[in-house]
Amino acid sequence: MRVSFPFSAIVGQDEMKRALLIAAVDARIGGVMVFGDRGTGKSTAVRALAALLPPIAAADAGYQDGTVRKGKVPVPFVDLPLGATEDRVVGALDLERALGAGVKAFEPGLLARANGGFLYIDEVNLLEDHIVDLLLDVAASGENVVEREGLSVRHPARFVLVGSGNPEEGELRPQLLDRFGLSVEVRTPQDLAQRVEILKRCDAFERDPAGFAEMWGRAERATVRRIARGRAALAGVVMPDAVLGFASRLCIAVGADGLRGELTLMRAARALAALDGIAVVSAAQISAVAPLALRHRLRRAVLDETGSTARIERALEELAA
Amino acid sequence: MRVSFPFSAIVGQDEMKRALLIAAVDARIGGVMVFGDRGTGKSTAVRALAALLPPIAAADAGYQDGTVRKGKVPVPFVDLPLGATEDRVVGALDLERALGAGVKAFEPGLLARANGGFLYIDEVNLLEDHIVDLLLDVAASGENVVEREGLSVRHPARFVLVGSGNPEEGELRPQLLDRFGLSVEVRTPQDLAQRVEILKRCDAFERDPAGFAEMWGRAERATVRRIARGRAALAGVVMPDAVLGFASRLCIAVGADGLRGELTLMRAARALAALDGIAVVSAAQISAVAPLALRHRLRRAVLDETGSTARIERALEELAA
Amino acid sequence: MRVSFPFSAIVGQDEMKRALLIAAVDARIGGVMVFGDRGTGKSTAVRALAALLPPIAAADAGYQDGTVRKGKVPVPFVDLPLGATEDRVVGALDLERALGAGVKAFEPGLLARANGGFLYIDEVNLLEDHIVDLLLDVAASGENVVEREGLSVRHPARFVLVGSGNPEEGELRPQLLDRFGLSVEVRTPQDLAQRVEILKRCDAFERDPAGFAEMWGRAERATVRRIARGRAALAGVVMPDAVLGFASRLCIAVGADGLRGELTLMRAARALAALDGIAVVSAAQISAVAPLALRHRLRRAVLDETGSTARIERALEELAA
Amino acid sequence: MRVSFPFSAIVGQDEMKRALLIAAVDARIGGVMVFGDRGTGKSTAVRALAALLPPIAAADAGYQDGTVRKGKVPVPFVDLPLGATEDRVVGALDLERALGAGVKAFEPGLLARANGGFLYIDEVNLLEDHIVDLLLDVAASGENVVEREGLSVRHPARFVLVGSGNPEEGELRPQLLDRFGLSVEVRTPQDLAQRVEILKRCDAFERDPAGFAEMWGRAERATVRRIARGRAALAGVVMPDAVLGFASRLCIAVGADGLRGELTLMRAARALAALDGIAVVSAAQISAVAPLALRHRLRRAVLDETGSTARIERALEELAA
Amino acid sequence: MRVSFPFSAIVGQDEMKRALLIAAVDARIGGVMVFGDRGTGKSTAVRALAALLPPIAAADAGYQDGTVRKGKVPVPFVDLPLGATEDRVVGALDLERALGAGVKAFEPGLLARANGGFLYIDEVNLLEDHIVDLLLDVAASGENVVEREGLSVRHPARFVLVGSGNPEEGELRPQLLDRFGLSVEVRTPQDLAQRVEILKRCDAFERDPAGFAEMWGRAERATVRRIARGRAALAGVVMPDAVLGFASRLCIAVGADGLRGELTLMRAARALAALDGIAVVSAAQISAVAPLALRHRLRRAVLDETGSTARIERALEELAA
Amino acid sequence: MRVSFPFSAIVGQDEMKRALLIAAVDARIGGVMVFGDRGTGKSTAVRALAALLPPIAAADAGYQDGTVRKGKVPVPFVDLPLGATEDRVVGALDLERALGAGVKAFEPGLLARANGGFLYIDEVNLLEDHIVDLLLDVAASGENVVEREGLSVRHPARFVLVGSGNPEEGELRPQLLDRFGLSVEVRTPQDLAQRVEILKRCDAFERDPAGFAEMWGRAERATVRRIARGRAALAGVVMPDAVLGFASRLCIAVGADGLRGELTLMRAARALAALDGIAVVSAAQISAVAPLALRHRLRRAVLDETGSTARIERALEELAA
Repeated sequence: MRVSFPFSAIVGQDEMKRALLIAAVDARIGGVMVFGDRGTGKSTAVRALAALLPPIAAADAGYQDGTVRKGKVPVPFVDLPLGATEDRVVGALDLERALGAGVKAFEPGLLARANGGFLYIDEVNLLEDHIVDLLLDVAASGENVVEREGLSVRHPARFVLVGSGNPEEGELRPQLLDRFGLSVEVRTPQDLAQRVEILKRCDAFERDPAGFAEMWGRAERATVRRIARGRAALAGVVMPDAVLGFASRLCIAVGADGLRGELTLMRAARALAALDGIAVVSAAQISAVAPLALRHRLRRAVLDETGSTARIERALEELAA
Repeated sequence: MRVSFPFSAIVGQDEMKRALLIAAVDARIGGVMVFGDRGTGKSTAVRALAALLPPIAAADAGYQDGTVRKGKVPVPFVDLPLGATEDRVVGALDLERALGAGVKAFEPGLLARANGGFLYIDEVNLLEDHIVDLLLDVAASGENVVEREGLSVRHPARFVLVGSGNPEEGELRPQLLDRFGLSVEVRTPQDLAQRVEILKRCDAFERDPAGFAEMWGRAERATVRRIARGRAALAGVVMPDAVLGFASRLCIAVGADGLRGELTLMRAARALAALDGIAVVSAAQISAVAPLALRHRLRRAVLDETGSTARIERALEELAA
Repeated sequence: MRVSFPFSAIVGQDEMKRALLIAAVDARIGGVMVFGDRGTGKSTAVRALAALLPPIAAADAGYQDGTVRKGKVPVPFVDLPLGATEDRVVGALDLERALGAGVKAFEPGLLARANGGFLYIDEVNLLEDHIVDLLLDVAASGENVVEREGLSVRHPARFVLVGSGNPEEGELRPQLLDRFGLSVEVRTPQDLAQRVEILKRCDAFERDPAGFAEMWGRAERATVRRIARGRAALAGVVMPDAVLGFASRLCIAVGADGLRGELTLMRAARALAALDGIAVVSAAQISAVAPLALRHRLRRAVLDETGSTARIERALEELAA
Repeated sequence: MRVSFPFSAIVGQDEMKRALLIAAVDARIGGVMVFGDRGTGKSTAVRALAALLPPIAAADAGYQDGTVRKGKVPVPFVDLPLGATEDRVVGALDLERALGAGVKAFEPGLLARANGGFLYIDEVNLLEDHIVDLLLDVAASGENVVEREGLSVRHPARFVLVGSGNPEEGELRPQLLDRFGLSVEVRTPQDLAQRVEILKRCDAFERDPAGFAEMWGRAERATVRRIARGRAALAGVVMPDAVLGFASRLCIAVGADGLRGELTLMRAARALAALDGIAVVSAAQISAVAPLALRHRLRRAVLDETGSTARIERALEELAA
Repeated sequence: MRVSFPFSAIVGQDEMKRALLIAAVDARIGGVMVFGDRGTGKSTAVRALAALLPPIAAADAGYQDGTVRKGKVPVPFVDLPLGATEDRVVGALDLERALGAGVKAFEPGLLARANGGFLYIDEVNLLEDHIVDLLLDVAASGENVVEREGLSVRHPARFVLVGSGNPEEGELRPQLLDRFGLSVEVRTPQDLAQRVEILKRCDAFERDPAGFAEMWGRAERATVRRIARGRAALAGVVMPDAVLGFASRLCIAVGADGLRGELTLMRAARALAALDGIAVVSAAQISAVAPLALRHRLRRAVLDETGSTARIERALEELAA
Repeated sequence: MRVSFPFSAIVGQDEMKRALLIAAVDARIGGVMVFGDRGTGKSTAVRALAALLPPIAAADAGYQDGTVRKGKVPVPFVDLPLGATEDRVVGALDLERALGAGVKAFEPGLLARANGGFLYIDEVNLLEDHIVDLLLDVAASGENVVEREGLSVRHPARFVLVGSGNPEEGELRPQLLDRFGLSVEVRTPQDLAQRVEILKRCDAFERDPAGFAEMWGRAERATVRRIARGRAALAGVVMPDAVLGFASRLCIAVGADGLRGELTLMRAARALAALDGIAVVSAAQISAVAPLALRHRLRRAVLDETGSTARIERALEELAA
């Protein structure tokens, strides 16, 4: 087992960390899309979060074929390889058993392995559209339905889907982007002190992974507790009608197509309140998650050079005024 | 079994609901094409309608190979996956039995499974043309004829075909569009109260699906009865010659190619009358279904910026004048 | 058995009906290409003609492998599916028997099944060129020669080939078009009474197919007799040299490439005379079939906006003057 | 056996007939390329020539695997199908025997079947370049060498290769054109009497093939004798140095690349002399075959609108002056 | 065994040799990309370095399947063929054992063979992106994880990855370039004496490889010791905060995206210090490796015609000023 | 066995013959690329040289699997077919033995068959790049290393690689061109007497191959002796430093990229001296082979219309001045 870089030791990148924590609290959020520069620790952060979470019951992880499994296992983390075929992703006929015993058995794929954990897709814009679509379908329904080669299998596939991509290298179709719950933008930090701090932490980790992990153990355990409290509180958080109206007015103001933006805004604001120990959602939580939930759902305004984030912030100001 | 969102609880989207009810009353209508924004509940509505209908006799559902099946089963709902191959759609040679017992047996496909229910294709414009063609052929004839790999099979495949697509992402060829009976356009609602209502219903449903379904049970049962009455009345509805003349004049006025528009207009007007308990069709029913039946069959007028729907409404006004 | 719409009940579309009757009288005509709007009953007409013809001896229909077959069977009608592979069209090695009994047996294809009847290809312009070529070769020679996978089979494949296509959706190469014997153009009728009549007949047929068929039985039987008389008279029809000269002058005047136009003109005029009970062909029959035989063989004149049909009619007038 | 149209009954098309006769006398000429309009009887002429030639010893025809075959067989005529794969053309592993008896046996292809006769390729410009190349290699060497799937077979494949193509539908690469020995251009005849004569002969042939063939029997037998005399005389025909100089000066004057033009000119002039019973080749034979041998080997002169044939004739006049 | 050209006998090309030595000391550097003219000895240098290193324990080289292997073997050098498939690179199911014994065994690929040595890819820009990606992933993690055909294998794959490419023949995507640790540029030497020296050494080597190798043995052994000392010293080299700050300021000044440049700068400077026997890294080492570590990570400045190397040197001067 | 045209009877084409003789003396030259017009006897010359050389020991020819083979065999000549797959070129798994005996045996490819002789590729520019690359790799190393389908085979593959191509039909990438040792340009001769002589020799050869070969026997034997003497003398030829300096100055003057040009110049000059019985190389030999060794390695000077050969000759004059 390789030791992961501690989640808490990641310098900056607050928006990405917030989105991952929200997705960890409410899986119905439906995936996080991370845009941004290369070499900014995107996969490190997701891997760190998976490693941070406490082991789960074996019975809840990975492929569930009815066998009773005992004990605990680490939270699954699956890194989807770039050239992965549909077979490997959804599972396929087990050829060995088909040829050997002459029976049609199911050989689970990466979706089965990700159950209970995280599925990370680097450069999601390079994946074929129909595979992205399929991943988003499964992430949304929590269930993988396989209908191929005479197989008809259905198994749980509940995971947090995280995709990363550099907009300079080709974009996802709006139809697909819209199906990611949240999106974040990461940039190379420009602050000198912050960069030196990153270098020092990477160096310390490379030279002594175990010692470094121990040094950050306390911060890590605090984050674990925060997620656990958020999950427990989620169902009880109250969502007043006025807050829903605020969310709708915001979506109308920025011109988001369809209603997925609004639904995500509602869910993400509730999850943030739960994480922060707040019992009744207010406009504050809506405003905090608005860039995450709406940024990737805006149409490009032809004559408006302002970026999506700025348009959301301007709309929030105007609504507040 | 996941609980479906109740059909009656869908806020707005009256045109889509009307087209689905008409198609549920007369399957010869030949499919419904839904254009429009993403995230507007298209698949939710179709799934809701399927879930709403009362269970049917097992003997009438799914693949019919001559075996007598007893009892009742839910109305089938098949969601065609984007990358579905022709094999999976029409059925294929059952390899397991071919290799094992050395016999050519038929392994039914998604068309067989949809028999007696609904076949939904999201983003139909991304499907290969020859598969769309094949689906429309089967939907029109109610029969799946398989001629491949030495198989020669013919089984009933009566279903309501529903396709959805966003015109911004590429269009269907006019040849294919013309073969869909009806088309509807859905938009993101712009009314604040309506949007908040949608958020509240989604939230209520997500938090307690069973309770929510029970709350809407009465409305659902009323819709079921309306469809049943429409089906029973259909054959007896009278279609006067003057009404047929009105339909023809309308089609000539808007310049629809071919006669499929007129035939669909006639069938859809009769189905609407049956749904509404009207014994003799009049221009009112023709006018009500004209946008559904003709909108996708108009040629793009090069210098006329008016949309298809507006052209149909203008022609109706001129005919009425 | 589904009941077909009666050939005689088709409203208008005289040119298409005439071309089909000529092809039914003399199969050497070599296929009919139908251009035109969608939804104008092209496939209905061909299917109707096949259903109309009296059953033929089983020994003359379908695949002929030497087995003596007794009794009568309906005239075959094969509707070539859009995605049909070369295998399915020409026939292939019978895998079941190859793997089972270890012998190379021939599994007949759609060409074998069409023997003695009709082969219909909707949207022939979407088929791959080499399959169209192959179909035209077989239609011309009346024989299917299979040389593949170690098979060397030759069986009769005499059928009337009918293709349809919309010129707006891509054209056939001139090389292929030239090999169709006749071509017709169909348009959506613009006469109100005619359209209402079509609607009424379709409605009547949909509501009671058997009763509708019985109503048109007398007209159908008259058409059957006319075809039978034409076939019997064909060999005896006289073709004077002056009429051949008229045909050649016409072809030179309109500038048809090659001699297939002239040969088809000669054959079609003789078949029309036979259908009409005329013993000696005259310029009248040549003129009547000229648009059918030449329209698809003219080069596009760059500066001449007149359509092909108008150019043929103008040439006929000038020759007559 | 279908009766072929008699070679002698072909009206006009003298250049094509001369090229085919030359190729029939000296197979080293290396193939004939026929350019021109569709429907001008190209394949009819080649098929007619093959049918005309007297039966050959079975031992000299088709695939020669060492088995002694007795008696006579018709001259082979192979019409290469448009979609023919390399397998079918060159031959392949015999799968039946490979799977059954476990031995690597050779299953001969179309090249083997054409041995001793003619190989016709309609629309050679639509064939893949590497297959055309392969056909030209075999036609040039008279031998088919198969190196594939562990097979290593070599068998005689002496045939006259004839390709046809319409320059309007795409051209062959100059590299490939250069490898055809001769080329001819065929056009639709524009003379009325000639066209009527063609119609009458076709009609007579269609109505009574056997009677028509008998009517032309005497002319056919004369052609057979002419070819036989030419073959016998070929080796003895004298080629004076001055005539070779004339051929070289001609090739330099028209600017033919490489020396294949000159070599073909020499061979074709000798074959023509042999056909015509002339003992010593003179400039007359060179001039007569020059368009056939050089036309397809000229570079397109950018500013010279004159066609290739005219350029050759002009050069011949200047050399004669 | 072919004798390799001695590393020490390579004339000039100091930057390439330095980068290879740094990568030989610290494998975490992550690969070297060599840009430049053809025929400048790129592959010769890498092959020479591999041949130079002392044999390693068999237990540490190549594929490690748990079998205990004894003795020493040469340092592996794998030259990836241009058309290498993913199968051959990562390993695949062993078909022989699968078909024979019916077990799923792993057949190691080129990554397994390169373990403990060098993997050289000539013209890396011609390789498919997803294979480059995969190679970089494995080079970075030191482990090959195979998930295909029902296999799930994980084996060590620690090697120095060296790619070469000519920027004139197409570039790597910035995403991929960024993942190479170092890059060097090689040019054809323009000094006459140097070129004659190269010719003489090549000639001497070609005429007597063994004698030539012996002549350079002493220099080779010195290089071996230098690498060994560097590896031993690496962990103890001190990296002061001020030096990290200098590295960060440099990266900000040249505008390198992400933090991989900075991390590589830190690692390469430490490795260089270790090679040179220096205990505490200073700006001197940072400056020395800056072109190697940053050159391929700069964005193209649209209006700035200065090359990447010049921009780095200018930034170093300004920081020093 | 077909008789080859004698090498000595080839009229003109001195540069091509010189390059082939040099390559026959020193195989390390690495292949000859022949540019030029079609039909100029390129393949005839290579085939003639192969046929000319005395038979070699069977033990040194073709595939060497360890079996002791006795006696003599002709020098191998392999003509690579245009559509040759990588399998056939490098060799592959022997499927017959794999399926039959269940063992992985190697079935040698064309590279194995060419061992000890010549490998000719007509139109090398039409071959896939990675196969050209592979052929050049093997030609350079004299060894074929096969790593595929679980095979790991290594066998000698020493041959002279000759490629031909017409620059008008697409060029090789500079990277590949650079790897051919020598290049020559052939043109259609424009001298009348020479052309007539060629025609006469071809005619004489076609009419009596054996007699023609006997007539040229003496000249052929002289060439054989010259090659044998050159091979024997090669290792002893002295290469003074001043001559190397001259070669380098020449390469710098014409701007050849990389050092392959210089290395080839050195090797080819030594081989030419050996062929001509000269003991010490001088500038004369460098000048004589400079166009062969450098012509295909020059960059296209954008504003300099002079061809490559002229630039080399000008540089030679300036160096001599």
